[in-house]
This record gives sequence, structure tokens and C-alpha cells, in this order.
Amino acid sequence: MELVKGVRKTETLELEELLTGEMNGKRVKVSGAVHTVRDMGNVAFVILRKRGGILQCVCEKGVLVQIKGRGTAGLKDVKEEAAAEVAGIVTPSEKAPHGIEIRLEEIRILSEPAAPAPLPVSKWKMNTSLEAKLNYRPISLRNVRERAKFRLQEGLVRGFREFLYGEGFTEIHTPKIGAKSAEGGANLFRLEYFHHPAVLQQSPQFYKQMMVGVFERVFETAPVFRAEKHNTKRHLNEYTSLDFEMGYISGFEDLMAMETGYLQYTMKLLEKEYGRERKTLGIELPRTDEIPAVRFDEIKRLVSETYGRKIRSPYDLEPEEEVLISRYAKEKWDADFVFVTHYPSKKRPFYAMDDPEDPTYTLSFDLLFRGMEVTTGGQRIHDYHELLAKMEKRGMTAEGMEQYLSAFKYGMPPHGGLGIGLERLTMKLVGEDNIRETTLFPRDMSRLEP
Amino acid sequence: MELVKGVRKTETLELEELLTGEMNGKRVKVSGAVHTVRDMGNVAFVILRKRGGILQCVCEKGVLVQIKGRGTAGLKDVKEEAAAEVAGIVTPSEKAPHGIEIRLEEIRILSEPAAPAPLPVSKWKMNTSLEAKLNYRPISLRNVRERAKFRLQEGLVRGFREFLYGEGFTEIHTPKIGAKSAEGGANLFRLEYFHHPAVLQQSPQFYKQMMVGVFERVFETAPVFRAEKHNTKRHLNEYTSLDFEMGYISGFEDLMAMETGYLQYTMKLLEKEYGRERKTLGIELPRTDEIPAVRFDEIKRLVSETYGRKIRSPYDLEPEEEVLISRYAKEKWDADFVFVTHYPSKKRPFYAMDDPEDPTYTLSFDLLFRGMEVTTGGQRIHDYHELLAKMEKRGMTAEGMEQYLSAFKYGMPPHGGLGIGLERLTMKLVGEDNIRETTLFPRDMSRLEP
Repeated sequence: MELVKGVRKTETLELEELLTGEMNGKRVKVSGAVHTVRDMGNVAFVILRKRGGILQCVCEKGVLVQIKGRGTAGLKDVKEEAAAEVAGIVTPSEKAPHGIEIRLEEIRILSEPAAPAPLPVSKWKMNTSLEAKLNYRPISLRNVRERAKFRLQEGLVRGFREFLYGEGFTEIHTPKIGAKSAEGGANLFRLEYFHHPAVLQQSPQFYKQMMVGVFERVFETAPVFRAEKHNTKRHLNEYTSLDFEMGYISGFEDLMAMETGYLQYTMKLLEKEYGRERKTLGIELPRTDEIPAVRFDEIKRLVSETYGRKIRSPYDLEPEEEVLISRYAKEKWDADFVFVTHYPSKKRPFYAMDDPEDPTYTLSFDLLFRGMEVTTGGQRIHDYHELLAKMEKRGMTAEGMEQYLSAFKYGMPPHGGLGIGLERLTMKLVGEDNIRETTLFPRDMSRLEP
Repeated sequence: MELVKGVRKTETLELEELLTGEMNGKRVKVSGAVHTVRDMGNVAFVILRKRGGILQCVCEKGVLVQIKGRGTAGLKDVKEEAAAEVAGIVTPSEKAPHGIEIRLEEIRILSEPAAPAPLPVSKWKMNTSLEAKLNYRPISLRNVRERAKFRLQEGLVRGFREFLYGEGFTEIHTPKIGAKSAEGGANLFRLEYFHHPAVLQQSPQFYKQMMVGVFERVFETAPVFRAEKHNTKRHLNEYTSLDFEMGYISGFEDLMAMETGYLQYTMKLLEKEYGRERKTLGIELPRTDEIPAVRFDEIKRLVSETYGRKIRSPYDLEPEEEVLISRYAKEKWDADFVFVTHYPSKKRPFYAMDDPEDPTYTLSFDLLFRGMEVTTGGQRIHDYHELLAKMEKRGMTAEGMEQYLSAFKYGMPPHGGLGIGLERLTMKLVGEDNIRETTLFPRDMSRLEP
């Protein structure tokens, strides 16, 4: 029997620890992937790729190279993408990335690749097609710029949770396999569940609403599944949805205020904790101090007048209109985000609360970010009889929704919520134009692997 | 156009704000569900259920009651489970929960239930069967003790992420629909994905390993799906898995150390931030300062000798043996957790690294907690040729695994990881004996709703 006492400090150091200045002149050990090897004859550079960034190592004279399972070797035997542990002296160097380099004494190769990488991983920009990047996903993501996008994505999710914990929300985990889904319809993946027909959830809508009766404020960050036959730059068939739902609201404005608070919190988090990745990608953070909110019908009219574009479908926003609305918001209000409120009732699900002043519209909104919808939200019906009436009006049956409806039957506060598409938010933050660029392993109509 | 500037302070106060002492004697507004109404004639108590706990409100004389849509009413019209907003004076009271009560001036009912709740939600212990609790899930969860379990569950996930962020891990989101899954076999849910056969992932195993080549250390907290035909107290067909995978390890001991660190961090978090829920459930936190680790063959022998139980299957742990191992660990070492190491190779998946000193066993482990396995982990094979050889030995084909294998072909560091079953960890923490008790909406062979 041995006792495990918790995390011990590793012998090898991370980039952050090397950059404090305290290690200058000292002998250290560092592990990492061999990013590149450049042998200039009398001097050679081995660039290591660490999780924190790249690290320049210099071999000036005879450096001991040992390869696991093969014994002592030469620098020419050190392959790119090998896993290495090196030892040497930390030396300030103005020309090196981050201002330091390691003067190597020893290189131990822990694991060797079986073949050279099929993509130029170590290049600053790979200049590789999206198709090739996706076909070699575990390799293309090793590129420093490629992976930086997903560090920022982490920040967006992390900020969501941290902010909402602070606002009294409880995190929930709801099932993805179910008998029925919130929006219903044709866009459901279907499967057999122990001889019963089942679907994959399009959204945690029903569950988060039921949980408002339990915790008042809840959130979930989880995958959702949509069998939409879209093959566009902005659709995925599986994506990560950041959802929250909150009770005791005085109106849907409370929801927009909460989302604005989230964005403010998160941009500060990206500013503070993800600086290296922002710099790597050259990203300017969007303005979030105040976000304009404008009615659906009004902004349609404004955009139509300003840019001379005819309104073709008065009850819908076309992608091109979303672009123009964002352009308008940027030009008139210097805004990167814009809330579009009061969507037409016929375009919203049955649980959306209609505007009592004009039931053609709902107490709901979308959030547009640099030309694209990244959030849909709104107040929900909380009265049991009102909910039943709306379902009947739409010709819906209560079958399979008994439990959802029971939450209302036995009392529910006024409430509402929203869902944010994580990959879209990332895409617009980092300035990509295809959602697959900001999805680790995208699922679309033709892509089920890796 | 209006400008949304972020979260505004609500007019109503939360329990935490009422308990600082600063509000004593002041008039406040509070919203919440009507938990119970007890009319004693000259005085009546309205107990509100807030997200933070219950709050006693006292009506001593004529209190103004207003019901939305119905106008002025009497106290007898206030129904349990209605959503209310009350106003009154904060008054210290030794007999009240948390030491304060609100002397009511006004009750506004925001929303009324359509029928009385089918379960005694407001009772301290509902004394209701698990079956009934699951059949009325959105209602039974409103019980203060029922919901407290899921607050602690939040703490377990939150601690996992916070601790791992601090240890240099990156959070990832990997697809749940795929062409192939890590363990393969019969336990897969199958579906049609745009005319292609697809499965739901049993674990993020392949993805997190691929991502070790990108970020060195990664984690994911997400649902996994297992079509196992088990109908036991410890199995679910969909559950939340807390997974991590880390590169540049010196052995599988690093993984156990990291998990111990997680448990230490998280028990402190539960201590500090979830005190009310711990008290509500009367929970004693487990010891995590040191966790014994003992070999599989050794502990089997020890348990067999100590408790006089014959070893029936030398290469497997039966549930009863898990209970005895935990009993042994408690009795001999005063340990709530125990690592069992070096599981037999034939019981582990192909990617597990065999022990070079005896390839009958692997460099892997399970973590047992109060009689039940809550974690499986271990070092993985990182060498491409070794991985191919092991697959061949098991008669496996590489079909559908090309991308997974490519990560190894193009270089992977020594690495390993683990997966923790969130619902099981919660179950053992709160002392439940059925995993459905610690799952919001369980999925088992007969339960697909709600």
C-alpha cells in the first residue's frame, strides 16, 4: 500500500515559470513537442511547443541526445513532433520569442513519430484548405494559431459559468436522449432506445424551464443536436449551447441585461487571462459597455431605408439582413453587438410569451454579433392555462409533454432565458467566416469523423 | 433604440442579503415560491422558498394580498407553490430558520398554480418512493432536501474545472455523435446520420487523447451514452462524465496524484461554498488528505483473507468485493477513498498500457469511494507501432480509427487520463443507495421521460 497525497510539483517547468526572470542563469528541465529543428552548422535551434507557447532552445556544441529505446543519438535524429524533455540554462535573449532561450545540455526524446506530419504544423499560417485541416484534425490543431482559437473558446464558456455562479445560478445536467424535444418537427435525430422511439435533444429548453421551479436560476453548457439539412458556413448538426433560464423576471429586458453582464465579464476575462492567445490571433475585443436594443420591425425598416434594400419577408430576418443590421449598429451606434427585440410570434415556438400590446409579436430577442445571430432568447409563458391555450391554437397535442406541463400546473414564476451558440460566438470573436474553423471536430451533413 | 448596460440590482433581496444583519428593521421586498401557509387564527405564517433556502414571513394583522389578474384577495387565497413577491420588515427571530423573519405588509401573487402539488414538497422528508419522485420529477425536486443534492453535484463539477484550469488544463468540447466509439462493442446506441450509420459516444476517450497532442492537458465535462442492458442501482444509460487526459506524465501515479488534488480542492470548495446544503443533508465530507493505493491482486488477497470470502474470478472485481475493499480501507487505513491499481490487461481496453514488468496487468487504476467504483483511469500506449501491435493482437481493425491513429503516427507524448462518473460520486458523497437519486432526469432501460 502506498499513500497518494495530491499533486506534486513536476521536475519540468512550464513557460510561465520560465518567464518570471527568477530562473535566468539556472539549469532547468522542460518538456514539450519538437516544433522545429533548424541546424545552421555551428549552432542549431530546437523550438519546443509547450501548452503555453513556443520556447526557443539553442544547441551550440555537443549536446547529449538520447532517444528512448534507441540510446545515444545525434541532433539529426531529433524529429519534428517528437515528445522531448530537455535540460539547459535559461538565458535572456532579445531575439527569442518571450525574450528567453534555453542553452541546451541534454535532449531526451520520450516518444518518436512514425512519419513526418502531413501538414506544415510549425508554420505561423499553415495556408492549408479547411478541408485538409479537418481531414487531419488531430494534426492541424497543433498549429499555434489554430489551437489559440479554442483557448479563447474556453474563455467564453468559463466566463459564462463563472459569471452565472456569481449571479445565483445553479448548473444543471439534463438528458440528451428523450422521448420528445422542445421544438419538435423534422429536425430531430431519431434513435431506438431499448425498443422505444427516442430523439436527441435540440435544446435543453423543457428541462431548464422545469428547473426554474426548483432553483429559480439555472444554466447548462452542453451539446445539442439538430438534424437540419443545411450545408452552410454557419450551421452545425451538433454544437455546444450555453443556456440559462431565470425566474422572477420583471420582463425580457432582465434577460438582455444578464447576457450583457456575461459579455462584459467575459471580455474582461479574455483581456486578463487569455492575452497570449488574443495576441497570437491579433484579436480586438468587441465593445460590451452598452449594447443597443431595437425592435424587429423598426430595425428592418431602418436598414431597408438606409441601404435601399427591399423588405421581402416582413416576419423573418434573412442572413443578409442580419449583416446589414450589424453594419447599421456599427455605423450609427459604434456597436459590435445589437439586440433585435419583439420577434414575430409565428416565428417563435409555442412557449414564447406574446406581447400583450400586440400579440403578433413576442417578448423575445436575438443577439446579433458582427453580422450573425449568436443568441435567441425571450420571456416564456408561465401560466398553465395560457400555455395550454397557445398549444391548442397551434394544433399541438400534450402527448409526451405531461411532465413539462406539470411544472406549470403546479406553479411556475414568470421566467425567461436564452441559448448562445458557442461556436458562432467564437467564430465572430476571432473573425473566421466558417463555423467549422471554430469547432474542434465539426459535425455537418457530410462529416461524421474524426 | 435603447441601451442595455448590464445587470441591474433587483429590487427584491436574496436570502444572503437578508442575513447580514444590516437589513434588520428595514422594509424589504422578497420574491419566492409559497412553500407553506399556516394560518393560526390571529397570526399566520407564510414560508417562502428561495433559491438560497426557506424564509419565514409573518402576517399579524390585515395584510394586503393581491393576486395578478384577480385583484385584492385574502390570505386564504394564497396557494402553496404560487410565485409571490412580498414586502415587509426584516425582524430578528430566534425561532425562525436562519434567525430572521419578515413581518409582512403586502403579498403580491405573480402566478398561481392550477392544482395542488401531488407530492408533499414542503415536508422536510417527503417519504415518497423513488418511483413517485421520478414520475413527478419537476415537482419532487422542489423539496429542499432533494434539490440540495444537486447543489452539491454542482460543487463537484465546478471544483473539477476550477482545479484543472489552475493545473494548466484546457477545456474541450468533443462530438457525441460519431462513426465509431472508443470501446466499441454491443453497448452503443445507434442512429442514422444523414443516411450513414452512427453511434453515440460511450466516452470522449479518442478525442481527449488526440487533444493531448494539441494542449498537453485537457478535460471535458459532458454526457456519455451506454446502451448497457443493466437494470441496477448503480448504472445509468446516460450520465455525466468528468474526463481528463494529460501528457508528459512520468507514470500513472501522476494521474492518481492529480485526482487526489481534485478531490482535496473540491472538498474544500464544498466546505466553504456549499455549507447550507451540507447541513441540510447532514453530510460528512470524506477524508482526502491521503488516499491509499494498493495493487489489484494484493487487495483481492487481503480482502479474501480478512473477510473469509473466496476469490471466484481472479481477473475481475465483483461489486461485493468493491464493498469489502472499501470496508478494509476504512478499517485498516481510515480511508474513504482507495485506489486499486494494476488491473488485469484482459479487462482493460486496447489503448491501456500494459505493465512492462508483467503484461498480464496494466498501468491503470480504479478509484473506489465508500464501496463503489467512481473512476477508471490509467496510462495509455503512446507509441504508434505498439498501439497497432496491441490492436492486431486483439483482432481489431483500424477501420474508422484512422484519424485517432494518425495522432500517434505523427507523434504523441507519454500520457494518461481518467473518467469520473459524476452521479456516482454524488451518490456516495450524499449517502444515497440508488444512482437515480442523484440524477436530475435519469435515463435507464425503462425511463425516457421526463
